[in-house]
Amino acid sequence: MGKNILVAHGGGPTAVINCSLQGVVEAARASKQVDKIYAARFGAEGILKGDLIDLTGVPAETIFRLRDTPASAIGSCRRKLGENDYPTVLETLEKFDIDCFFYNGGNDSMDTCHKINELAKREGLDLRVIGIPKTMDNDLELTDHCPGFGSAARYAALSAAELALDASGLPIHVVVLELMGRNAGWVTAASALAARLTDCEVLTYLPELPVDEDKMLSDIAAAYAKGKGLLVTVSEGLCGLDGKPLADTGIVDGFGHTVPGGTAQHISDAIMQKLGLKSRAEKPGLLGRASIPYASAVDREEAYAVGAYAVQAALAGESGSMVAINVQRTPEYHSSLSLVPLSDVANAEKKFPLEWIVDGNKIGDAFFDYALHLMGGDLPTYALLRK
Amino acid sequence: MGKNILVAHGGGPTAVINCSLQGVVEAARASKQVDKIYAARFGAEGILKGDLIDLTGVPAETIFRLRDTPASAIGSCRRKLGENDYPTVLETLEKFDIDCFFYNGGNDSMDTCHKINELAKREGLDLRVIGIPKTMDNDLELTDHCPGFGSAARYAALSAAELALDASGLPIHVVVLELMGRNAGWVTAASALAARLTDCEVLTYLPELPVDEDKMLSDIAAAYAKGKGLLVTVSEGLCGLDGKPLADTGIVDGFGHTVPGGTAQHISDAIMQKLGLKSRAEKPGLLGRASIPYASAVDREEAYAVGAYAVQAALAGESGSMVAINVQRTPEYHSSLSLVPLSDVANAEKKFPLEWIVDGNKIGDAFFDYALHLMGGDLPTYALLRK
Repeated sequence: MGKNILVAHGGGPTAVINCSLQGVVEAARASKQVDKIYAARFGAEGILKGDLIDLTGVPAETIFRLRDTPASAIGSCRRKLGENDYPTVLETLEKFDIDCFFYNGGNDSMDTCHKINELAKREGLDLRVIGIPKTMDNDLELTDHCPGFGSAARYAALSAAELALDASGLPIHVVVLELMGRNAGWVTAASALAARLTDCEVLTYLPELPVDEDKMLSDIAAAYAKGKGLLVTVSEGLCGLDGKPLADTGIVDGFGHTVPGGTAQHISDAIMQKLGLKSRAEKPGLLGRASIPYASAVDREEAYAVGAYAVQAALAGESGSMVAINVQRTPEYHSSLSLVPLSDVANAEKKFPLEWIVDGNKIGDAFFDYALHLMGGDLPTYALLRK
Repeated sequence: MGKNILVAHGGGPTAVINCSLQGVVEAARASKQVDKIYAARFGAEGILKGDLIDLTGVPAETIFRLRDTPASAIGSCRRKLGENDYPTVLETLEKFDIDCFFYNGGNDSMDTCHKINELAKREGLDLRVIGIPKTMDNDLELTDHCPGFGSAARYAALSAAELALDASGLPIHVVVLELMGRNAGWVTAASALAARLTDCEVLTYLPELPVDEDKMLSDIAAAYAKGKGLLVTVSEGLCGLDGKPLADTGIVDGFGHTVPGGTAQHISDAIMQKLGLKSRAEKPGLLGRASIPYASAVDREEAYAVGAYAVQAALAGESGSMVAINVQRTPEYHSSLSLVPLSDVANAEKKFPLEWIVDGNKIGDAFFDYALHLMGGDLPTYALLRK
């Protein structure tokens, strides 16, 4: 008799989270060892309510279309499971006779995943638990990078380049672009690629390095004075010297984190008020994780691969691990997959290396050596006739 | 002896303004009647300074890459020419021995174009002046639609669909999306396509129809209560019942227009404060006119065609006209080009038909019958497994 598997999504989606889901379903089908393929409707909420979607009979064509479907096709949530919830989780797993459980998420989800695995062991359940990494923030430890990051980085890089060309082609204002990243600047760092692809001045500020706003404004004034147009890119979680975000939305999320945001508008207002320059703030926000036309082909393939690998590992008897991506970059990019202990991943946070930030507002080559291939490689060459 | 031509860009760029430039250059080369191809560096500024870019010898490969280059490759400006400027304009035209002048822009630029043509006639100059239409706002009269609109509409539609899927897949907040359009709602109307492509509730508000904010909030509460997720899309220029924009940036542009903006954040704040719901505001802003990955293939081809047609018309002796696009939609889409008098286009503004707005916040089929093909036709089919 075959196994029954359950997959759930936790936290914010990425442009490629559904590629991992496609990988899970197609690997399960290819294995011939799986009877039922279930997905939790809206993540932990679905598990707690016993509300599962039966994907077993969904047409292959629909599963294939997951590749080009943004957000979570099965639904996700930000509910953090508490000690009181775990008995209910076990009830659902038993009710549906689940043998393998896959949780696709970031730090918080890997913590939940770890706790479910520990609980199952304590209760003597024959449950295999594998974490599938996902976060555009790229802040999971023990994996070279996270599925979702490459696409968010490509979005940041190309959007920034497009805005930089707009700012340098019609240089009437300083354009400030806000990108997602509460604590980790990986995605915003990618926006610095605009300086390499265009003729515009670009300054980039990450949450890892608190800023002196006066210094920031004088740097902005100096860069704008070069007359080439200016794009300033900032992480939503950028902090002042007091360690507090320059701006926040006043929202507290389901995991208890205050949601930063409005940072670009805050800086844009200061540029207008204190420097007397025109400025506009742009904040594509969730589009940075939802955009399919900007998705990275490399990211998409790796997201698929980690989903498929999770299923193969569980069917081979593994449990209590997260799938990690290991990379060799020279002489050419090559990635492979392995398993790392969930206990080592849970709640750790990989920050952007401070030494990759140059002069406070430029991003060094080391970052692009790391990230360029993950962004998909095929970058545009623009025709600039103004010079 | 061949002709010398000059092309200039006026006002905000679009995703396809450089396709029109490509059309101008390639048609000039193909004609064998053109000696020198000049472009004004930064539009009217370049004309006033006598600062022209000589494109005559630019490699064909670079000209071809204009297709995928956002913003204005030759530079644009928002300087409105005054009576005192026109003698300087004539000086530049005479100095470079310009026979044909092409101004690529929107309402304000067509007005300038018209005045230059009148002046040249008064002064007895043998100058041919043709306007090339361009505006993402789609608010030019006498043309079925404007190059730049299709791409901005595709951006609005697909971005809205992607945000709608994010909002319905992780329904923890009302997402409010602000799109460009100070006075004309054409682009924002396209975002209503998200209701047809996804399972999310979508409410759309255009600047043509002032809103009662209390009614708007109660409609938002009712739509959110359906539990399917909610996306609200608004034009930056959305007005309250007093006829004033709900929010503005405090900036006055070079044409003397106050720049609206921050409308989505304003509504998002009201949703949080008055309805007690979580909400986030997204404002991709200039990305809506700069994004190449979302550009419409139809728009791109038509933008190229109007540029090429302008050159052919001028070389055939025409002057004082703008290129217009005429469309036949049944039995299938077919567009053709013609010339319309600049004097009839200048400073007129085509507003979104009020009868296409349904119940204040939905967009009727008539709009999509008009606009769907312009958006490029090939729309995604998403895999939604949540139901």
